[in-house]
Amino acid sequence: MTDDRITFHYAPQTRAFGTRVLLEELGVPYDLHVMDTRAGDQLKPDYLAVNPMGKVPAISHRGSVVTEQAAVALYLGDLFPETGLAPALDDPRRGSYLRWMVFYGSSFEPALVDHAMKRPPLPRSTAPYADYETVVATVNEQVRRAAPFWLGERFTVADVLWGSALFWVTNFGIFEKTPEVAAYIERVISRPAFRKAQADEAALIAARDAAA
Amino acid sequence: MTDDRITFHYAPQTRAFGTRVLLEELGVPYDLHVMDTRAGDQLKPDYLAVNPMGKVPAISHRGSVVTEQAAVALYLGDLFPETGLAPALDDPRRGSYLRWMVFYGSSFEPALVDHAMKRPPLPRSTAPYADYETVVATVNEQVRRAAPFWLGERFTVADVLWGSALFWVTNFGIFEKTPEVAAYIERVISRPAFRKAQADEAALIAARDAAA
Repeated sequence: MTDDRITFHYAPQTRAFGTRVLLEELGVPYDLHVMDTRAGDQLKPDYLAVNPMGKVPAISHRGSVVTEQAAVALYLGDLFPETGLAPALDDPRRGSYLRWMVFYGSSFEPALVDHAMKRPPLPRSTAPYADYETVVATVNEQVRRAAPFWLGERFTVADVLWGSALFWVTNFGIFEKTPEVAAYIERVISRPAFRKAQADEAALIAARDAAA
Repeated sequence: MTDDRITFHYAPQTRAFGTRVLLEELGVPYDLHVMDTRAGDQLKPDYLAVNPMGKVPAISHRGSVVTEQAAVALYLGDLFPETGLAPALDDPRRGSYLRWMVFYGSSFEPALVDHAMKRPPLPRSTAPYADYETVVATVNEQVRRAAPFWLGERFTVADVLWGSALFWVTNFGIFEKTPEVAAYIERVISRPAFRKAQADEAALIAARDAAA
């Protein structure tokens, strides 16, 4: 544990939600920097100085900035080894952990975005992710093996990422909610951390809308 | 260092090239499993059992499989701390290291693929990567700051990924080769590891074509 505060750059209804769940799972203190994407806060100079991509999530910690959802999660998981939420460097699950954390942004999300936008498929050698059907099959196979959690018996940072992601993409109707997928999602979203992040976000949106 | 052998699943003229450079930079022994993508080796049952995505690079090590270029690189960098090529967990560069390793697959590559394929831009909230121009500006800003290497004074795993990537995308004409970018690429590709990986790949292709 460290005394250095983590600043979490966050906006409701964005990809930053999973990071908020993770911070709740870790149970560590952090300062929340809330932005309103409808007001374009994430594209204002103050925030572009933090992340020139104008994206959330990002965290500032010990003078460094970490961006990209999976990178933030890997960083935070390793920062708090006492929580046991990230497989350590010498843990036999470490390779699988890294594989699935990186797979999320480099294969899963591009495949789902292309599918949602009804873009014509790319040639297999060009596509970073083979094709949508292969991504869906690969994730479903892991969900079947992920009993009860993504890397086996113990809940990890990978479950925060994948549980939150599957929750959203099944709700948006761009990923089929099979019984196995539904059961997996439920195991993640029924946890207090997810419920708290959800309630906090709902309260924030309500306050924003009341002020508008 | 470990006695356990690393099996590196590789095919020439693919995204696995950077992993080959990295293994040469690390200077560690590995067993090379060569596939021919023109013969569809990567889609045959033997390899799909390793990586159902049918993609390279992948490595098998201690009973685990690691896929996704950045995950393989993160795994190998941490596996050999004595090489000093990966910032350790308590290194102040660790957050920036993770950020750029993940950014590669989740923002840079999707942006460049979409640009190369002349796809219409996505709405900003949907795109995983803001837009092509922002990605290009963000990478150029890091190249300017990356003096001489991606994370500062010392060559790291991030340089293998970014040096190799920028080498290819500038050659393909989908990323502008400014003088700063050219100088950065040269610092990476002039190293013995890159030259050896290149020579080995050329020899492999020549042997394959002679046998065809």
